[in-house]
Amino acid sequence: MRRAALITALLLIATPVLAAEPADTAAALRDKALTDTLAWTVLEDLTTTVGPRLVGTPGMARAKDWGVKTFTDLGFTNIKVEEFAKPAWIRGAESASITGPYPFQLSIIGLGGTVPTPAKGIEAEVVVFKSYAALLAAPVGSLTGKIAVVNQPMTRTQTGEGYGAAGLARRSGPSEAAKRGALAFLMRSVSTSDSRLAHTGGTRYAEDAPKIPSAALGVPDADLIERLAARGPVRIKLSLASTTDPKGVAWNISGEIAGSGKPEEVIIIGGHLDSWDPGTGAIDDASGIAITTAAAKLIGDLPRHPRRTIRVVMWGSEESGGSSEAYLAAHKDELPNIVMASESDLGADRIYALMLPKDAMKQPSLAELSTVLAPLKIFVSRDPAPFGGADVEGLQEAGVPVFTLRQDASRYFDLHHSADDTLDKVDPVQLNQNVAAWAALLFMLADSDADFRAKAP
Amino acid sequence: MRRAALITALLLIATPVLAAEPADTAAALRDKALTDTLAWTVLEDLTTTVGPRLVGTPGMARAKDWGVKTFTDLGFTNIKVEEFAKPAWIRGAESASITGPYPFQLSIIGLGGTVPTPAKGIEAEVVVFKSYAALLAAPVGSLTGKIAVVNQPMTRTQTGEGYGAAGLARRSGPSEAAKRGALAFLMRSVSTSDSRLAHTGGTRYAEDAPKIPSAALGVPDADLIERLAARGPVRIKLSLASTTDPKGVAWNISGEIAGSGKPEEVIIIGGHLDSWDPGTGAIDDASGIAITTAAAKLIGDLPRHPRRTIRVVMWGSEESGGSSEAYLAAHKDELPNIVMASESDLGADRIYALMLPKDAMKQPSLAELSTVLAPLKIFVSRDPAPFGGADVEGLQEAGVPVFTLRQDASRYFDLHHSADDTLDKVDPVQLNQNVAAWAALLFMLADSDADFRAKAP
Repeated sequence: MRRAALITALLLIATPVLAAEPADTAAALRDKALTDTLAWTVLEDLTTTVGPRLVGTPGMARAKDWGVKTFTDLGFTNIKVEEFAKPAWIRGAESASITGPYPFQLSIIGLGGTVPTPAKGIEAEVVVFKSYAALLAAPVGSLTGKIAVVNQPMTRTQTGEGYGAAGLARRSGPSEAAKRGALAFLMRSVSTSDSRLAHTGGTRYAEDAPKIPSAALGVPDADLIERLAARGPVRIKLSLASTTDPKGVAWNISGEIAGSGKPEEVIIIGGHLDSWDPGTGAIDDASGIAITTAAAKLIGDLPRHPRRTIRVVMWGSEESGGSSEAYLAAHKDELPNIVMASESDLGADRIYALMLPKDAMKQPSLAELSTVLAPLKIFVSRDPAPFGGADVEGLQEAGVPVFTLRQDASRYFDLHHSADDTLDKVDPVQLNQNVAAWAALLFMLADSDADFRAKAP
Repeated sequence: MRRAALITALLLIATPVLAAEPADTAAALRDKALTDTLAWTVLEDLTTTVGPRLVGTPGMARAKDWGVKTFTDLGFTNIKVEEFAKPAWIRGAESASITGPYPFQLSIIGLGGTVPTPAKGIEAEVVVFKSYAALLAAPVGSLTGKIAVVNQPMTRTQTGEGYGAAGLARRSGPSEAAKRGALAFLMRSVSTSDSRLAHTGGTRYAEDAPKIPSAALGVPDADLIERLAARGPVRIKLSLASTTDPKGVAWNISGEIAGSGKPEEVIIIGGHLDSWDPGTGAIDDASGIAITTAAAKLIGDLPRHPRRTIRVVMWGSEESGGSSEAYLAAHKDELPNIVMASESDLGADRIYALMLPKDAMKQPSLAELSTVLAPLKIFVSRDPAPFGGADVEGLQEAGVPVFTLRQDASRYFDLHHSADDTLDKVDPVQLNQNVAAWAALLFMLADSDADFRAKAP
């Protein structure tokens, strides 16, 4: 009984000390985040007052001002706007219709970066392929004078990995069709939804092929064309307009929660501020902006900041590409001080796993991470993070270790890059689960001395 | 043992007799329908080869030919095309955008029958109402020079009864807004979905109010306007074009499975062939056409037809109104022989209940109906059918008893009257459950002598 009493006494003494331990602070942050309203407020404000944010548009310029004001209002420090050159592709009027066997207005959207059609449009008979592989198997010359239509579906997965296979057709399909003689390229939207709304996304023309106009079809539209083509010839008329501003610019915007011990050591997180144009970019990626900004702000409100500096970057050109490279170029000299990086860019649905740099869980300072994240139903993967996000890819390639909080992407590609990417699609409860995970994890990483760089400076 | 042997012998003898009982035939029809492919074939063919079928368009004229050919190919008899006058409203180019606080392209669709805007459009500040009741509570003159926006959501229900309350704003809202001075009327789509795609549907102008242009907004668009209006003034520009052909016509098309005993007694079933224009009218109502045509065809293939005649009517103007009245006018003399009527017009999801005319289950010839429908998980309601369908409303009001097979409408209003009403939304398994129920029920009704008319002729 004396022994038990002694333990009790020790526990009572130990409690205040334990409360200051990083894991306890992280747990308190986690719990606070679950009922915090900041992420939703940030998300609602960006999607409501700014709207679509395609690089080169007035919307993106408004977003830049919004980003600076948001960081300022929330008390972030060392706020920076880093401008970089980014030729801007801007969508014009777009339409397509079946002209035979009967007239039918199709639901389409031009792929990002597509060349326009002539003003009078392009009208031709279609050749339908049930997969991208079938298009690749078609001989050179077999599509001369035709419009190629690829109707490859996308598989729904929790990880989102179906995007890779389906996205390949979008990125490379136009040039592959052109090499075979096609006048234009149409594809089933890279989408897991059955909505008529089409999904855009960037395409890349090869150097060795004619640049042909390219658009995505609503999923049911692609199916209709395939069913009609099984009965006889189908003709389609496509009209796409767009302009490109070769002198366009974009901006990476950042704000910090300064470290209390080693402020020169920086952890970079964030989401991307730019979006595609048909929706208001709520899941892609106002959510990432809201989650990481709110998590950092919660940490900034602590009486003691963690040792390292947390920098939130609102990336300026993820969809059109280039923010990652621009950031790396501008921060080459700072590289030895960037200890870790990650991006939130897969919507706002529940996080289910954390992936850290290799051997991270051997670090004593991170030992309690599993325990802190377990109530959020997040496990710590035994595999190292393969990827930190498109906007930190430059940093990753330059040797910065990355981590990733894996989100449930099951319904992400129902909405992604379409007019349906709007605020109402975000579940506030799941959004806050994201904030809770980011806040807890970030605090522990920023307060630790764990260093995963191959060659610490 | 001798007794058991006797019973066995009696059963063996009795079996062929029992097999000829209506309930057994109905059960066999039911089971055959579950694996039959005709309904899907009809549905796929109509939505693929004809497409949208708005009254007054070439699509509806093609649908008429399709209907006659389909009845002919399937061996229906007494095929009729009954033309009636139907002024045709035809949609033109439509667009709307927020012009302030920042430009944003809205997703809209004009309400059926709306007057056009002037060619240069209408631009004005909006007044947002969170419910239709709030609009009705606004004083006369309070909307002068404004665009009224009603953002009343629709409740999802299995029965579909949320449509009544939400649909009221669509039918009467434009005139009520006009009475209060509004220049134009915009409303949240009558929809249970969160898609940007807007849902159309007919509106009716009152005689005592100016006719103002009227359109439905995508659900997220209506929410965005409400959120922006909470922050400050919102201006919208609306452009709607349309034409009306006062000399338009429509057609009710019918075909029969002739009765074997009392062929002059007719049961009228069917779906409507016309559709709204943005989709291909798969759930509304190619499904009803497919279900009732396939069910009747299965009965027509029996070695012995049921006693009464089954007439399938492909109604020609449900969405624009008028087929019910036209049919009643053309068939007034036949009324004493029309013993029952019903329409399939709520998509193709699972039937969960049958409602019959009052006291129907007291009829000995229908006693086994519950048993026949039970394997399909359909119960027979103790309440009488209140409604047989919009296209048999004229017959119902003239005294023809109606029945209804109630379908699960939980997801029907996600798609109804929108561009998303396409073939891929129909579940073939549930479609066939519908066919099974219709075939089994119809056989029993048509082979019985049950008569529910207040005053049988």
